[in-house]
Amino acid sequence: MTTEPDNESTAQPAIVLVGPQMGENIGAAARAMWNFGLDRMRLVAPRDGWPNPRAVAMASGAGRVLDKVKVAATTAEACADLTRVYATTARDRAMTKTVMSPEAAMAEARALAAAGERVGILFGPERAGLENADVIRANAVISVPTNPAYSSLNLAQCVLLVAYEWQRAAGVTAVEHRLAGTRPAEGAEVDRLVGHLVERLDEVGFFYPEAKRPSMIANLENLLRRSPLTDADVRTLHGVVRALAEKVRGRK
Amino acid sequence: MTTEPDNESTAQPAIVLVGPQMGENIGAAARAMWNFGLDRMRLVAPRDGWPNPRAVAMASGAGRVLDKVKVAATTAEACADLTRVYATTARDRAMTKTVMSPEAAMAEARALAAAGERVGILFGPERAGLENADVIRANAVISVPTNPAYSSLNLAQCVLLVAYEWQRAAGVTAVEHRLAGTRPAEGAEVDRLVGHLVERLDEVGFFYPEAKRPSMIANLENLLRRSPLTDADVRTLHGVVRALAEKVRGRK
Repeated sequence: MTTEPDNESTAQPAIVLVGPQMGENIGAAARAMWNFGLDRMRLVAPRDGWPNPRAVAMASGAGRVLDKVKVAATTAEACADLTRVYATTARDRAMTKTVMSPEAAMAEARALAAAGERVGILFGPERAGLENADVIRANAVISVPTNPAYSSLNLAQCVLLVAYEWQRAAGVTAVEHRLAGTRPAEGAEVDRLVGHLVERLDEVGFFYPEAKRPSMIANLENLLRRSPLTDADVRTLHGVVRALAEKVRGRK
Repeated sequence: MTTEPDNESTAQPAIVLVGPQMGENIGAAARAMWNFGLDRMRLVAPRDGWPNPRAVAMASGAGRVLDKVKVAATTAEACADLTRVYATTARDRAMTKTVMSPEAAMAEARALAAAGERVGILFGPERAGLENADVIRANAVISVPTNPAYSSLNLAQCVLLVAYEWQRAAGVTAVEHRLAGTRPAEGAEVDRLVGHLVERLDEVGFFYPEAKRPSMIANLENLLRRSPLTDADVRTLHGVVRALAEKVRGRK
């Protein structure tokens, strides 16, 4: 593969699959990457050669990732132009290495890439995982904190979590209120709704005994204020109250 | 399924698979859950019935999750004992709902569970995803911020990301919930409130024209589900509806 710095790759990490076995897993990894906008995949000595029809079939929709794949004969060759390499591993290795969570590693990777570094993340073969030589080549280890009693992440799932954290490190809006063509109700609108409700309830003697009227009204208002009402909701509730109370006013 | 509160479930969210089709996907979802220590799975009308040998075969190692599965006939039944429900959805829905990232939603879910609430997360059928009726039933929506140009997360991957975020949120400190001697309303309680309201509104011909009846009811239910109602609130609202509608029924 070429080792001339790939300008595009400075913007995102290279996902390096070392000795991947089944084409289906390569395709699934490509999908996982593209789900979060990553499309720089590198393969080190794929067992069944390259290109791989099974990978293409599985990648449906994420073909662009496979079109850009760079194949290398060794991990060293695949990492030749990288300035910062992370090795993903589940097993504990008897070596001194910084072990990072996907979150911490991708936050760091984002910063390094922004500073112009070329980042790569190594993923081992489906069954055995990375060899110690590959882990040693990496600058740090990424370990997904799974259930100590059970860790069965497959290759694509591991790529998915790392790609997810890369994208999350970009800063994503946490909560968003989707108002299907409406806007949040203003205080005065809720005031009028409360007033209307109380008026109709007075007509049917709801607030009894009189002594409890203030606290009962306070409860109703509190209930309405706690709800994230929209202007449409307020109109709907006015309609509901009117409809239910209508006959009370003896309307025909 | 039983609706007696399951003590264990207060410690973790129920993963509710609505209308799952392939047993393999149920098994894969079980593995994704158990990877991050979750083992409360509920199934709503699984297409191929239950138990499902294919699910068991795929779940290898995560069988305990399937052993504890609770099967329900409807989403309402599966959510009857839950006090906070999230719906996972990719498609944009034309309804007013709080849309949260997996991160924000699981941080909140952790806090709510710690405060004694029973949390559940809905996942739709493999192909179509959740129906609007199920999304309306939820109190909030979880949307994974994937590549706008490509979102191909499968059921197990979606469960994996949510379970991962639940586990990542372990550090979150519980927010204080002031319920003044009340408790969060359960799904079944809100079901009955919606039913009562619709019944009384039908008596006064509120849903007109008939063609708009379903969407009008959906709006009302969605409005109620968005509100953090307590058991006391539900009783109050039953009283309000009854009081306003009373004369309609010709009570003296």
